[in-house]
This record gives sequence, structure tokens and C-alpha cells, in this order.
Amino acid sequence: MAAQPDIPMRQRVEEYISKLQDDIVSALEKLDPNAPTFKRDSWLRAQGGRGLSCVFAVPVPPPGVAQQETVLEKAGVNISVVHGMLPPPAIKQMRADHSSIPDIQSSVPFFAAGISLVIHPRNPHAPTVHANYRYFEITETPTEEEQAAGKSGKVIAWWFGGGGDLTPSYLYEEDAIHFHRTLKAACDPHGAAVYPTFKKWCDEYFHITHRGEARGIGGIFFDDLCEDPHRRFAPDDSRPKTAEDIFAFVKAAGDAFVPSYVPILERRMRTPSDDHERRWQLLRRGRYVEFNLVYDRGTKFGLMTPGARIESILMSLPETARWEYMSELGTDPESREGKLVEVLKNPREWV
Amino acid sequence: MAAQPDIPMRQRVEEYISKLQDDIVSALEKLDPNAPTFKRDSWLRAQGGRGLSCVFAVPVPPPGVAQQETVLEKAGVNISVVHGMLPPPAIKQMRADHSSIPDIQSSVPFFAAGISLVIHPRNPHAPTVHANYRYFEITETPTEEEQAAGKSGKVIAWWFGGGGDLTPSYLYEEDAIHFHRTLKAACDPHGAAVYPTFKKWCDEYFHITHRGEARGIGGIFFDDLCEDPHRRFAPDDSRPKTAEDIFAFVKAAGDAFVPSYVPILERRMRTPSDDHERRWQLLRRGRYVEFNLVYDRGTKFGLMTPGARIESILMSLPETARWEYMSELGTDPESREGKLVEVLKNPREWV
Repeated sequence: MAAQPDIPMRQRVEEYISKLQDDIVSALEKLDPNAPTFKRDSWLRAQGGRGLSCVFAVPVPPPGVAQQETVLEKAGVNISVVHGMLPPPAIKQMRADHSSIPDIQSSVPFFAAGISLVIHPRNPHAPTVHANYRYFEITETPTEEEQAAGKSGKVIAWWFGGGGDLTPSYLYEEDAIHFHRTLKAACDPHGAAVYPTFKKWCDEYFHITHRGEARGIGGIFFDDLCEDPHRRFAPDDSRPKTAEDIFAFVKAAGDAFVPSYVPILERRMRTPSDDHERRWQLLRRGRYVEFNLVYDRGTKFGLMTPGARIESILMSLPETARWEYMSELGTDPESREGKLVEVLKNPREWV
Repeated sequence: MAAQPDIPMRQRVEEYISKLQDDIVSALEKLDPNAPTFKRDSWLRAQGGRGLSCVFAVPVPPPGVAQQETVLEKAGVNISVVHGMLPPPAIKQMRADHSSIPDIQSSVPFFAAGISLVIHPRNPHAPTVHANYRYFEITETPTEEEQAAGKSGKVIAWWFGGGGDLTPSYLYEEDAIHFHRTLKAACDPHGAAVYPTFKKWCDEYFHITHRGEARGIGGIFFDDLCEDPHRRFAPDDSRPKTAEDIFAFVKAAGDAFVPSYVPILERRMRTPSDDHERRWQLLRRGRYVEFNLVYDRGTKFGLMTPGARIESILMSLPETARWEYMSELGTDPESREGKLVEVLKNPREWV
């Protein structure tokens, strides 16, 4: 891939995530042409930056009118591009994973751009999916010349993070294999160590510790990917190392989202289902809420950030979730529910 | 009140919470005699201790059969009595609030007994309620003589904590006043500073910071109540100070639970309601989940404790909760939903 040294990475990332958001929303809208379109909701951040949330929800009908049947129940495909000043404690914390960040005692400018999506389909046989790709940059305070030219300061440190993972209520092995195989095919050209490393990281990250089970059947997860040595890779592992290589990998993973998920959704979205299956789906959505509110770093960080846009952060929560005390669903290992739980307790290699 | 110096406090607390649990479950069962009874579920903790969970849930009916109409939707009235060894980091943390705890470098025995209850009624006009009273004790390792006699070691430090709070979906001012007035009447004989101090603490504690609103309309909340000076009280504040006085106060507050809540439930449990009101109730339940999973210290501590009984800890979550992106419900200050939100954003003095 040819480098574009004259266009700053932050701008290229912003363009890429905008296009990816468009592609994903279009693919989902095409799938269910009679459903309401995604609501486009753009916002500005007072402290610097902007976002575009594309959210799907079916309006609650007036009394006596049945709810429209749609493929999706609730979905959000959001991008945000924010910048501001990073205080010294935050910098200190980041130095653990980024040896290139100097030990600075004053606030420094940061830039963050990312796409984040969660799709909860209505049908209990169709899995929920989540994906998220982001770029982070710390710069020097711009010189007077740079400021006059509308430019940011010299980049001190940068990294990419992200991933995608699938959360079914009922296990269809061919779906799990398709999802992992598509992600692996996107990763492999960027280094043999990429998929195995990020697949393992995903299983570890999306873990509901208090339940002793994974949130779903995994996918890939990565963070802190830059030119520095990386704690998850051995020095001679084959993986993207330059900014160009890493951005190319992130784009390949992002581009793999639609082919990794939409064929599964098409396959399952019309499967006949009953109240029992819906109940189990809502119990699994309860676990989704537990993971997102108790463990997810992005959600926790978002909720603790003054001025953060709560509606965008909690967009990931399902429309409805359910909790039963000592539910019998999923406890029989021979049941269809139990077969999912077995895989969540013992993550598998799918490809 | 006469002291009972020959019976250890831990035993008296255990007897009291067992009786209180019985009284509360009986009062709730009497209220809806045709409903299924509470399920009694006793358990043992491998590391020491036991519990009795009394949980109400309506079994999910077979396909085609309508769900039985009941006053309660989901409820739990749980007691637990556990003991074990407390590691030095936990002791260190507790010393901040308990000057009587010495700076110990080794693990010490602890004992904890408490009652915890959450009641989610079905009717959107009937409020959810939560209460919790607990006793904590740190002792010396028993001497050989004490061990032979089946006794615990000398008490190094002890304290009581607890409270009760109300979470309506629709605001009925007379309910809020009744709830607070009943708790205040239980507090007042134990010191003029008790109710105002614990009312304020409750408003501060049950705060969903990321939403800028309270979980409900408050009640009382307290912790670390013992003979030591207390950070929430001035030295000359009128409040219970001896173990006997504090236990008498805790019993008065516990005994006030049924009269503070059951009359409200009786008043609201048959109010006609529609889908719109149900939808708002489920959105409020979503906020309840947010508070419990993101902020509640008891829940967080429980989830992080290896060997903890997750089903008992998460019993507090509602049967169903709902999240809508940018919901319009509650945003109109003139609507009934908006009137609740107004009180949640600006806690009131109810008595």
C-alpha cells in the first residue's frame, strides 16, 4: 500500500471511519427495506470535536397498534472525532503501554477518532454483534506557526485499537466459523501472528468474570497497536509494525465487518421462533448489560468522563433485557441453551 | 433498652434479621394471597457461613397460557451470615473509617450478618423499594480456650450500616411523604441528628452520576456506625453511640420497613395502567440496573468477591428493563414522567 505522507493520519482515519459507517448503515438498511431508516444524529462536543450517531429503533406504536416487525431491534453505528487536553495522570497511565510517551508533567493535546457499533437483531436465532475501531494520538502543543496554519503539533505517540465479536443466543457452529474465518482472512495478509493473538485477547477481554463465562463466541480484540514493542507479540512475530501497515490492517478488519456479519443475519433473521427462545434471548441480553456496565473499559471510561455523551455510550445496551433468579434455562447441558453456555465457558478455536 | 451482655451482638443481630425477614415475607405474602409464595432457598458458604434467600418470581407459563396477574413482579428478601479471614489490604482500607482498628499486618477473623431486600411490583404506579441492614465485626484470633469453647475471639472493631429507599416510576407526593415520615419517626427517638444526616447521605449515595439524577426519592442511608467519632456527625450531635443504642436504632429502622412501604403498595397495586406507563416503568428499571451495576458498593464488592453467590447479589435486578436511545419520555417537564425526573434531579425535603 502506498503511503500518503502529505495527509495526516488523523484525517485519513476520519475519512475511513466516515465511509465505513456509511457502508455498514447502507448494508443494514438494504437488508430490511421496509423498516424505518437509521436515525442520523450529529452532535458537537463543547470541549472539541464532533460525532455522528446512526441509530436504529422502532418507534413505540400508539395503544392498540401492533409493533412493526423488523429485522433489527436496536442498533447503533457511531463515529466520533474528539480532541482536547490530556491531564498528566492520564498520560502517566498510558505510558505503561507506550514507551514512546515522554514523562510529561503538563497537559498535552490529544486526538481520538473511532467507529463503534452494536447490532441487536429481533430474532433470537440471529446473533448480536459488536465492532469498534479507533485511533488515538498525543501531540506536542502546536507552535505559533502551526497554530496560524491551522495545524496540530508534532505527534508524540499514536496507536490503534479495536476488534469485532459475535454474541449469539443460540449456537450455530457454521455462523461462528463463518465469522471467525472472515476475520482471520482479513488479518492473515497482515502477519501470521495477528489473528491468533487477537482472537485469544478477545476471549480474555469479553469475559464476564462473576459468571465464569464469555459474553459471546469472540472474534478479535486489540489495543495499543503502534511501532513500539507490544506486550502481546514476541519481537519476531509477523505483524503490522509501521503506521502504514497498521492502518492497512485496521482498514481490512473494518472492511471485513459487513461480510463477516450480514450473511449470518440474512440466514437467521426469518427463522421461526417462540416465547421460550425469546425469553432465553432476553436473559442473554441481561448478561450483555452486565458485561457492558461492569467490565467494558470503553463504557466505564465514558461514564466517568465529564461531558461525555451518555446516550451514545449506552447505545450499546439492548432494547430489553431480563433477569431471573436461579433460572433453569441453560443449566441442562443437553438443551440448546446449555450448548451455548458450554461454549461460553470453554472458548473454542473456530478456524 | 436493657443490655444483654451475656449474649454476643453477632448472635442477637442474626436472630433479629431472621425474624425481620420472616415478618417482611409474611406481610408481602398476606398482601397477595393468590400469588405463588416466596421461594425459600437456603445456602451454605464453603468458606464459612450461610444464607437464606426468599425470592418471589412468577413462573413463566407454558406457551399459550397467560402469565398469572400478581402484585409483585420480582422480589428478594435475603439474609446472610458469613465469617472468614480478612486480608491486610481490606483491613487497611477499613481503618480509614474505624480508628479503633489497629494497624495489623496479618489476616484477622471477620463476621458479617445482614438483611437485604428489593421489591419490584408489577404495577407502574407502585414504587420499587430497597432496604438493607447489616452488622460487621473484626475479632482477634480466638485463644485455644475460646476455640475449645466454640467462641470467637475478642472483638477489635464493629459497626452497623444500612438504610431504606424508595424508587417510584410515577411520583405520588403523599407516598414520598409517608415513606420519609415513617422512617423519620423511627429515627427521631434515637437522636435528633439521625434522620437529617442519613436522609442527606441517602440522596448522595443513590446518585446516578452519569445521568445527573437520583435513583429514587431517597430515604435513609448510613454506614460505619459505632462508638468511634463519625465523619457524618459533629461531636455534640444527638445520635446513638453505644452498641446497645445503635442496635436499638437499627432495629427501629428495620421494624419500620413494613409500615413505611406496605401501605403505599396497597394503595397503588390495583391502579389501572397502560402500555405507556409500563414502558416508562421499564425505562426507570433500566436506570435501576445502571445504578446497581455501575455504582452500588455492595453489588460491586459482591461481584468482585471470589466464591460470592452471584444469584443473591443480582437478585436486586428487575425482571425486565428497557433502554431507548434518546427517549422522549421524561423530557417534557409538564408530563407526569417529567415531574418524576424533576424530583430526581433536585432531591426534596419530604418531611
